[in-house]
Amino acid sequence: MQTNLQLTKEGRLRHLLTIEGLPSDTILNILDTANRFIDPKTHEIQKVPLLSGKAVFNLFFENSTRTRTTFEIAAKRLSADVINLNINTSSQSKGETLLDTVDNLVSMQAAMFIVRHNESGAAHLIARHVAPHIKVINAGDGRHAHPTQALLDLFTIRYFRPDLSRLRVAIVGDILHSRVARSDIHALNAMGIAEVRVIAPYTLLPKGIELLGVKVFHDMAKGLRDVDVIIILRLQNERMSGSLLPSPQEYFKSYGLTSEKLRLAHPDVLVMHPGPMNRGIEIDSAVADGPHSVILSQVTFGIAIRMAVMSILMKED
Amino acid sequence: MQTNLQLTKEGRLRHLLTIEGLPSDTILNILDTANRFIDPKTHEIQKVPLLSGKAVFNLFFENSTRTRTTFEIAAKRLSADVINLNINTSSQSKGETLLDTVDNLVSMQAAMFIVRHNESGAAHLIARHVAPHIKVINAGDGRHAHPTQALLDLFTIRYFRPDLSRLRVAIVGDILHSRVARSDIHALNAMGIAEVRVIAPYTLLPKGIELLGVKVFHDMAKGLRDVDVIIILRLQNERMSGSLLPSPQEYFKSYGLTSEKLRLAHPDVLVMHPGPMNRGIEIDSAVADGPHSVILSQVTFGIAIRMAVMSILMKED
Amino acid sequence: MQTNLQLTKEGRLRHLLTIEGLPSDTILNILDTANRFIDPKTHEIQKVPLLSGKAVFNLFFENSTRTRTTFEIAAKRLSADVINLNINTSSQSKGETLLDTVDNLVSMQAAMFIVRHNESGAAHLIARHVAPHIKVINAGDGRHAHPTQALLDLFTIRYFRPDLSRLRVAIVGDILHSRVARSDIHALNAMGIAEVRVIAPYTLLPKGIELLGVKVFHDMAKGLRDVDVIIILRLQNERMSGSLLPSPQEYFKSYGLTSEKLRLAHPDVLVMHPGPMNRGIEIDSAVADGPHSVILSQVTFGIAIRMAVMSILMKED
Repeated sequence: MQTNLQLTKEGRLRHLLTIEGLPSDTILNILDTANRFIDPKTHEIQKVPLLSGKAVFNLFFENSTRTRTTFEIAAKRLSADVINLNINTSSQSKGETLLDTVDNLVSMQAAMFIVRHNESGAAHLIARHVAPHIKVINAGDGRHAHPTQALLDLFTIRYFRPDLSRLRVAIVGDILHSRVARSDIHALNAMGIAEVRVIAPYTLLPKGIELLGVKVFHDMAKGLRDVDVIIILRLQNERMSGSLLPSPQEYFKSYGLTSEKLRLAHPDVLVMHPGPMNRGIEIDSAVADGPHSVILSQVTFGIAIRMAVMSILMKED
Repeated sequence: MQTNLQLTKEGRLRHLLTIEGLPSDTILNILDTANRFIDPKTHEIQKVPLLSGKAVFNLFFENSTRTRTTFEIAAKRLSADVINLNINTSSQSKGETLLDTVDNLVSMQAAMFIVRHNESGAAHLIARHVAPHIKVINAGDGRHAHPTQALLDLFTIRYFRPDLSRLRVAIVGDILHSRVARSDIHALNAMGIAEVRVIAPYTLLPKGIELLGVKVFHDMAKGLRDVDVIIILRLQNERMSGSLLPSPQEYFKSYGLTSEKLRLAHPDVLVMHPGPMNRGIEIDSAVADGPHSVILSQVTFGIAIRMAVMSILMKED
Repeated sequence: MQTNLQLTKEGRLRHLLTIEGLPSDTILNILDTANRFIDPKTHEIQKVPLLSGKAVFNLFFENSTRTRTTFEIAAKRLSADVINLNINTSSQSKGETLLDTVDNLVSMQAAMFIVRHNESGAAHLIARHVAPHIKVINAGDGRHAHPTQALLDLFTIRYFRPDLSRLRVAIVGDILHSRVARSDIHALNAMGIAEVRVIAPYTLLPKGIELLGVKVFHDMAKGLRDVDVIIILRLQNERMSGSLLPSPQEYFKSYGLTSEKLRLAHPDVLVMHPGPMNRGIEIDSAVADGPHSVILSQVTFGIAIRMAVMSILMKED
């Protein structure tokens, strides 16, 4: 159902809503397209006129300066007109429904919506509603999915380790509340990664996570052994003050990635984090700023990935 | 006085502040210009370089994502640089006067101000103050006027019913607090519409409204009979909780537009609404989404109308 | 130290952080560059493609619509892509450090940061951290510096009084809390102004201000005598309600610039104010709007100065 929503009958990408069910050649096409936006010499992202005259709407029902900014920059690098809408102060508060808001923006000549919402399925709802020539990108919905984050994570891994089939990847931290974890697992499996592990305390692991094809660990010492890539998840502030966890210090001791724990992994291990980081809680500064960290590369590649998704969606018309 | 403020001695448009007193050929010129921005085949709004290098300031003292966005899109379709200013958090709160703010923005090379303010006359005040080469568009001032809304309503009616002279138009709802109603009445009368009706409960009708040249009805069954166009006004949330009205349910029963009430009108009646809609209060979803509704066309034509007004004002220099 | 941070070994401008220590030929180069952006006939600011394809980030940790807008307009007149970030609602509140935010934005292809922060030294901190090809402009940090304001003040004085060496300039008001005063004093001294005076009540004067090379006055009657330029400082609202001053009325009586006090100065005296003005407190409307006032010229020249600084920084790469 979701697959049908984001793919045409011919298998072309119509919307990007979730990694789940996305064919590997569609994923590869996005990665390869992103690659072409990166200048091979300077590694800077190029500016191109592909979306000139098109209006891209950042429709953010949940505040996120960072993600909104990356989409805004990606759209501007494609020469689109970008309209930012933070929907608290807007028509929503005036009692208009989500779909009425969308219909109105479509009538204002929106070509594409970048949607972030704290409820799972919001982007799907919009994609199901709009006319075929309108494109939707899910920029994070509830605990469900964050597909562009997963694609940029995949791009980053492949950039530094082109042979994906032999890699062991560990995702560490709050798996339970993380749409990033969910999307990453789908993306890694779709690309035939050798092994995907999740490492988390019992309280931060969803039941039945093994069904997604991951190995579960509760102990960093075991889980990190010989992995080629570590993806550290952000520990949301609201969790820290909750009852699920003992204390930030305790969490750091058990699950915070330190240089010492890093030595358990493969000597060339890559360290990744979707940001923003809580230094001293889920990651130590020595690791975040150390030679294994590719965290800032993720950010740059995130621009290229978003440009790739936008340009592919607009081309498919 | 207001006429002089928005027209030059030669009768050209200098500012757009109110429909009241605007000559019909000026109105027709705006409608015809708007028409040229709409692609005849795709019905999409074209992007043109008419305001390239010009700075348009959205000066919003009252929050309105929808109206601000339509002006922002219209200005960007004309290739202007758009600066959005929501004046709560700005210099106004620092004790600067409205006209000092305006003077400063003019000195920053503003070419045009789009002004929304909760006090009637704010746009006039600014228009009276600025140098002749600076243009002002009233995007809604208090209960007074909302001229671009009236122009887009007129455009929409004419688009679907070109022979205006024979039409009967009913405006339904909160006439008392509505700048849209006031501007619509002036616009419809200026174009020689056969008959303009207002339908509202006693508590939502201003005294002496008949003097504007409208027929007054309190009963939908009588007021809707044989009309060609129905303009449903938004019932502001703050009214609903006030003492002017019994309850939203009661209001819907008496004045909400349902399919049943719609049958009283002409079989080809057009249903319009300035948005955002309160479904189930002033309009039933079956009507809002039904075959008579041209509500989303209003939104699209609103972009073209705003482009037309902006380009006419800038050309007249 | 600061000098080294904002100048290369060859003496070229790398960042603009403070006027202190800036060589006079660097200042003159900025003024002359600004002059070229002003159309000699119309006095309008021209639009040029110098920063086309570059991303300029307005990184405002302290709210200032006016200053942010001037930088936004200046960047757009240079054809840059501008991204506005008001960092309250952003990652900062999620616990990310200032430098992590900056690193992320650099990874998003930021070419230049315009930084306003309520802590002195914030722009320096960022400049010290970023790679050499990233440029930083201080748009006001705590009580420390506001260099572009000082440059536009200097430009304005030179525009109307080209022979700087004979001028007497008085800065009036809240010297204690003013980064504008500090930057103005450095700029005026660097250009060899004949005499710089400060006029303020004891409570609004920092100790040892004489060491900056200014003459101190507490009495307007003495301080204004024969001056060629008067720079009136804004009295912050929070001071007025504090215990440092008797009352706004009392302040106006002693230090507010009235037509009467203005007669003590040179007959051709220029009156300046960084804005926003408190009319009737630090300046009388008759003076603010009178023939000696060049307050609005300051605003226009501020755009040209900011364009000049941005284009010089980007050229030096």
